[in-house]
Amino acid sequence: MGESRLDTGRIRAARGVIDPVFLDTPQYRCEALEPELGCGVSIKLETANPVRSFKGRGTELVASQLAEAGARAVVCASAGNLGQALAWSGRRRGLDVTVVASRFATKAKLDRIRALGAELELVDGDHELARERAAAIAQYEGIRLLEDSLDLETCEGAATIGLELMDGTPTFDTVLIALGGGAMATGVGHVVKELAPDIDVICVQPHGAPALTRSWHQRRVVTTDSTNTIADGVAGRFPIPEVLDDLLLIADDAVLVQEQSIITGMRLLYNQAGLIVEPSAALGIAAILENPTRFADRNILTIICGSNVDLPAYHGWIGVH
Amino acid sequence: MGESRLDTGRIRAARGVIDPVFLDTPQYRCEALEPELGCGVSIKLETANPVRSFKGRGTELVASQLAEAGARAVVCASAGNLGQALAWSGRRRGLDVTVVASRFATKAKLDRIRALGAELELVDGDHELARERAAAIAQYEGIRLLEDSLDLETCEGAATIGLELMDGTPTFDTVLIALGGGAMATGVGHVVKELAPDIDVICVQPHGAPALTRSWHQRRVVTTDSTNTIADGVAGRFPIPEVLDDLLLIADDAVLVQEQSIITGMRLLYNQAGLIVEPSAALGIAAILENPTRFADRNILTIICGSNVDLPAYHGWIGVH
Repeated sequence: MGESRLDTGRIRAARGVIDPVFLDTPQYRCEALEPELGCGVSIKLETANPVRSFKGRGTELVASQLAEAGARAVVCASAGNLGQALAWSGRRRGLDVTVVASRFATKAKLDRIRALGAELELVDGDHELARERAAAIAQYEGIRLLEDSLDLETCEGAATIGLELMDGTPTFDTVLIALGGGAMATGVGHVVKELAPDIDVICVQPHGAPALTRSWHQRRVVTTDSTNTIADGVAGRFPIPEVLDDLLLIADDAVLVQEQSIITGMRLLYNQAGLIVEPSAALGIAAILENPTRFADRNILTIICGSNVDLPAYHGWIGVH
Repeated sequence: MGESRLDTGRIRAARGVIDPVFLDTPQYRCEALEPELGCGVSIKLETANPVRSFKGRGTELVASQLAEAGARAVVCASAGNLGQALAWSGRRRGLDVTVVASRFATKAKLDRIRALGAELELVDGDHELARERAAAIAQYEGIRLLEDSLDLETCEGAATIGLELMDGTPTFDTVLIALGGGAMATGVGHVVKELAPDIDVICVQPHGAPALTRSWHQRRVVTTDSTNTIADGVAGRFPIPEVLDDLLLIADDAVLVQEQSIITGMRLLYNQAGLIVEPSAALGIAAILENPTRFADRNILTIICGSNVDLPAYHGWIGVH
C-alpha cells in the first residue's frame, strides 16, 4: 500500500504514553452470537474503562504532549465520547478542557463531560457546527484545538487497538470497524494491513450518515446536507481530505447499514453477549446482519467502541421499557 | 497470618497455565457510581470473556492438569458458572465434561453449558444435592471430581485476580469479595493480605445463604437447612471445613446483605456503569449500600465476578420490562 499518515513505529511508541487503563482491552470469541450471525464472531471490547469508549487512547497522547509543553488548555468538538475522554485525560494533567457539542448530543455523554470537570458549551446545531465553534474558541483563546481524525494523535491512539489485535496469531480474517471521522478506521486499519495484509478491513457507516463512505467509493470528498441516524458517534457530514486519503490507502471496503440493523445488532449484543453498547458499536454486527452471505463462515472481529447511551432511548432500541 | 492452603508462588505459576483470555481483566475506577455510594469505587471486571465469569481461571488449571495426565473426563457440580467454564476449558483439551446442576439453576447458564458441549445432568433439588450426585458419578465412572473451593486449583485460579489487583501500587484500601464456596474470597484474600496486609478483605454473602459467613463468625462449620436468595452463584448450605480454616486466616470480616440491596446494586451498576451483572457480582456494592458510614471516604475495590443472568428475571430486578 502507499504511504498514509500513519506510522507503526510511532503507534508502538504511543503505547508507552497511554494510561494502562485504556490498553490491552478484552478480546474474545462470542460464540453465543454466532448461531444468529452465521459466522465466527470475536469482539474487542473498548467499553470497560473510566470513559466507556476507546477515545481515551488518543486523548492520553494529546494531553500528555500538551502537559509536557506547558500548555494550560485545550478545546475540542465532540459528539460526546472524545469530549469525555479529553476531560478525563486533561483533568489529571491540570489542563483546562473545553468541549463543544451539539445540544442534541446524547445526554449521558454531556453529563459525564461536566462531571469530569470540563467546560461544556452547547451549540444549536449539529456536530459540524460544534466543530466550527471549537475552532473559533481555539483561535480566540490561543489554545490547542484537538480535531478528531485530522490530528494524528487521535488516529495513533486508536491504532494501538490494532497492535493488540495483531498480538499473537490473529484468529480472524475480517475486521469490521465503525466509520465516523475516520480515526479508528485508519488507525486500526493501518496496523492490520501492515502486519497482516490478507485480513480484510471493512468500514461500516449508517445510511443516515454516509459522507465518508460515499467519499471513499468516489475517491473524492463528498459532503451531505444532513445526517439522520441513532449512531451519534459517527454522524459527520464533512469528511476531512487527509483522512479520506489515508482511508483510500487502508480500507478494503466501506459499507452502509440501515438503522434497523443497528438496533438489531444492539439487541443481539445485549441478549446474547450481556453487553450494553451504543449504536456506533453495533455497526459491525449490523453489517453481518445485512449481508450474511458475504460473511458466511468467515471469522469476523469487530470493535465494540463505546457504551455511552441514554437509557430511555436504549430501552426503546433493545425492546424493554 | 497463619498458614493457609494457599501459596503465592503456586499462584504466580498458575498464570502461565491459564488462557490469556481470562487474565489481566479490566480494573478501573467507576466515578459514576460514587455519588450514590459515598466512597471511592473501583471495579475488577471478570465478565468480558467467553464464559462471562471468573471461573475460567480455575478450570484452566484443572483441565490442563487432567489433559497432561491423560485423563479423559471430569465431572463437577455447579450453580452454572463453574460448569460453563469447565465445559469451555475441557472442550479445547478433548475432555468429556459432565456438569451436575439443580433444575432450578439459572436457565441461561444451563443453556451455555449445553452449547459448550458438556453433558448436563439436572437434579431435583438444590446445589448441595448436585454436589452429592457429582461425587457419585465421579466414583462410579472413576473420573476426576472437581470440587469448587475445596480443590486448590479453583482457589489458585481465582487468586490470580489478587495478583492483578496488587500489580502496581494499589489505589484501594478495602476489597469487597462475594462469598460463596470460598474459592474467590480465600484465593484473592490470600494474595491481598500477603502483599498488602493493611488492605481490608471483607467477604459479602446474602442473608438468604449465610452458612459460611456464620461459620466464619463462630469459627466452626455452621450449616443451614435451606437458602433463599437471587444470588444463585453463592447459595451453598454446607461450608467446607478446609475452606473455612483458610477463610479464618485470611478474611478481616464477613458481612451479610439483604436481597433488596443486591437488587439496588445491580440497578446501580446497570444505570451508572453500563454493566449487566448477575446478583453475586453486586454483593460488594450491596455491602456499601447497607453500611455507608462504615465505608464513607474509603477507597473500595469490588470484583464483578459474573454476568450470566436470565433476562426476564434481570429485567424485573433492574426495573424494566
